[in-house]
Amino acid sequence: MGGDVSKAALADLDAGEARGRIARGETSSVELVEACLARIEERDPAVRAWAHLDPAYALAQAEMRDRQRGTGRPLGPLHGVPVGLKDVIDAAGLPCENGTVLDSGRRPQEDSTVAARLRAAGAVILGKTVTTELAVYSPGPTANPHDTGRTPGGSSSGSAAAVAARMVPLAVGTQTNGSVIRPASFCGVYGYKPGRGMISRRGVLVQSPLLDAIGVFARSGADCALIADALAGYDPGDRGTRLEAFPALARTEAARPPVRPLLAFVKSPVWDQVEPGTAEAFAELCAELGGDVAEVGLPPAFADAHRLHGALMLADIARNYARYTERGADSLSARLRGMIEEGRAVRAVDYAAAIEAIESLNAALEAIFDRFDAILTPAAAGEAPVGLGSTGSPAFCTIWTFCGVPALTLPLLVGPAGLPLGVQLVGRRGQDGRLLRTARWLVGRLAGAAPAVPEERPEGVAR
Amino acid sequence: MGGDVSKAALADLDAGEARGRIARGETSSVELVEACLARIEERDPAVRAWAHLDPAYALAQAEMRDRQRGTGRPLGPLHGVPVGLKDVIDAAGLPCENGTVLDSGRRPQEDSTVAARLRAAGAVILGKTVTTELAVYSPGPTANPHDTGRTPGGSSSGSAAAVAARMVPLAVGTQTNGSVIRPASFCGVYGYKPGRGMISRRGVLVQSPLLDAIGVFARSGADCALIADALAGYDPGDRGTRLEAFPALARTEAARPPVRPLLAFVKSPVWDQVEPGTAEAFAELCAELGGDVAEVGLPPAFADAHRLHGALMLADIARNYARYTERGADSLSARLRGMIEEGRAVRAVDYAAAIEAIESLNAALEAIFDRFDAILTPAAAGEAPVGLGSTGSPAFCTIWTFCGVPALTLPLLVGPAGLPLGVQLVGRRGQDGRLLRTARWLVGRLAGAAPAVPEERPEGVAR
Repeated sequence: MGGDVSKAALADLDAGEARGRIARGETSSVELVEACLARIEERDPAVRAWAHLDPAYALAQAEMRDRQRGTGRPLGPLHGVPVGLKDVIDAAGLPCENGTVLDSGRRPQEDSTVAARLRAAGAVILGKTVTTELAVYSPGPTANPHDTGRTPGGSSSGSAAAVAARMVPLAVGTQTNGSVIRPASFCGVYGYKPGRGMISRRGVLVQSPLLDAIGVFARSGADCALIADALAGYDPGDRGTRLEAFPALARTEAARPPVRPLLAFVKSPVWDQVEPGTAEAFAELCAELGGDVAEVGLPPAFADAHRLHGALMLADIARNYARYTERGADSLSARLRGMIEEGRAVRAVDYAAAIEAIESLNAALEAIFDRFDAILTPAAAGEAPVGLGSTGSPAFCTIWTFCGVPALTLPLLVGPAGLPLGVQLVGRRGQDGRLLRTARWLVGRLAGAAPAVPEERPEGVAR
Repeated sequence: MGGDVSKAALADLDAGEARGRIARGETSSVELVEACLARIEERDPAVRAWAHLDPAYALAQAEMRDRQRGTGRPLGPLHGVPVGLKDVIDAAGLPCENGTVLDSGRRPQEDSTVAARLRAAGAVILGKTVTTELAVYSPGPTANPHDTGRTPGGSSSGSAAAVAARMVPLAVGTQTNGSVIRPASFCGVYGYKPGRGMISRRGVLVQSPLLDAIGVFARSGADCALIADALAGYDPGDRGTRLEAFPALARTEAARPPVRPLLAFVKSPVWDQVEPGTAEAFAELCAELGGDVAEVGLPPAFADAHRLHGALMLADIARNYARYTERGADSLSARLRGMIEEGRAVRAVDYAAAIEAIESLNAALEAIFDRFDAILTPAAAGEAPVGLGSTGSPAFCTIWTFCGVPALTLPLLVGPAGLPLGVQLVGRRGQDGRLLRTARWLVGRLAGAAPAVPEERPEGVAR
């Protein structure tokens, strides 16, 4: 890139571009953070993406990053780049109130692993973004930047909206059902939920130890890879993280697929919930993709996946949020109280059956991924619903969260109201880099770019 | 060793000795198996350790092993050595009836991983040993070889009794609560339950996926290491097995401790159940050990361990044995039916709390193992109880099974009735070899052998 960029337009830069400009000395981190703060001042009164913003604290970090650059020492992969953190992720120096008055005034003394890794990568923690109540369903004040009469989705509402409104190039959220992919779809940004065990949840609100995943929001697949690379890795503080080393996502994302990818269009068992405009948009997408996609049905066992996920998630919510009902059930929303009651009634035998089903459903997915590079499926039933009273349905994300496979939504489609519709790509367990690479190929394929891969699929090539 | 051994005395050989004689051509596998079969013929009418014994099938394996030796190719670590398998572990060619008439006539077509690994190590699968009903509490016909009016313990009743009666040098069992350590203690043999994830359970009756462990019975610690080395290792067919490589147990077992071991005498929260003779025997043992042992109290959190283990185990039994109640609840014992009912009523929130407690209790154990090489504690409340109607209490094993740490019982003490009392040593997670090495040191220490380790403990040496 390089060259002149107006001060206001700095906030429009992708993270990779911004990092490049800072590294080359074309822009300072302070200038970038100032541009983001100016954008927030302009747009946040309507969007309300931020729960906690301390401009002085953000600028102090940026000044430190600029001083560090002056020393000539090697710079981190996110040096000087501002990042928003969902307000369920602890960062020392900022409040973390988890979207409930019961945590009002909570100020963690320690960084979560996510915050610590961001700082180690050179990032500036710009502020904390709005979460729904305890990362479940009851919305905060955030509006959809494309139409402030509509929900941004949830539960990572502020992270999605802030990246969409170009207040910050990167943000981090969490997903226990559809809390990254759905708001990213509604807000028209990239959302990436890595495969299970990739990013530590130490210092993050625990909703369900087995289901909770850290996810990221960005304005390109390359930026998703950039920040996920910085966050990924084994952490003895989260025994759900995997010991295996992870491939360099950014390098794989940028690579040319060895053979032309083949996508599996999957309607999933909740297709009856899909809106007509979404069905139509996906039919057109599949027609456009021609031989690069084939419709695939999920085996019958997946009909149970939503029920199994629900049993697991509700029981875990009941258990992990018991301390909130003890401290002040009246301060919780009626919906959450109802979910906690429901969760308390879940039987252990059903909970254990749900845990076991994760493995058998994954085995069935493996058979699909033996033939296809990625699953192509809607990220949500449709465009962001009208009104700020709910956050829409996570149903099109549930199976992939339950199975713990990597998922990515790309803002490639537009619905009947002119609002974004996400294209969700789901990858094979342990193959996050390949999923991101396939996504880049798909974006180029739809942009009509000359294919940078062999036109013909070699016969019998193992994928 | 080497030299002449009378034919009958071949059945008295340790596995390592027997393997050595076979390798050197001093004894054939057929002679060894014939000696074991003769011992069984002599003693099993009273002991009833075997559920399925097919002498022709055993001898055919032995003949094959002897022919293999004749080829001059390298021999496996258990070449020609007979092993008994608890009748919940599948072995192709033999029935596997799981201790219930509901599996009467069941003949698995495939080997469990345990059976396959034994064959790969050159062992002869001598037969299937008696299990309690579905490896829970209702006893089979087996009697204690030391006093046939007393229980051998359970649920691996036949495996413990067969090794104790010198019908076979090695046997394999399973432990979900106290099913290896307790019968080994009652029968006066070594019993070893490796740390969680060491030996695959593929092809073994599933009682509780998190708690079930394969364990072994032998007449020395070295033999425990010998067979566990052959069985240990990652198995994609059991996702509970650990990816990490395991140290060579036999080599570590035989090694000299780098510093003089220090033992932690732990009474555990069930000390009120201990019999006076056991308390007295352990007091004498500690007095004898002098400065090599110190009494250590478990943190208060362990008071809940038995309840947590019970919630987890009962719910898992309810879930995994539902197929038996469906096929014929009337054919199950009233006790097991009651446990299944109890398990069905367990709530998911309590089940999840139990799973989570495993990690926090382990963290508390780590603090003990930072200071001590092993925990020293009774293997059971006392000697084998009188009568064959029950199998005694597993309570002195529960915490260690729940935490998944390695445990070993050594037949070092004698109770007031002149029957064996096991000394249970419990090791640090992931340090099975060190536990076996400490056990060998303890045996030598009590035998008054000249210590083969430095007399003085260096100050501040990390253990």
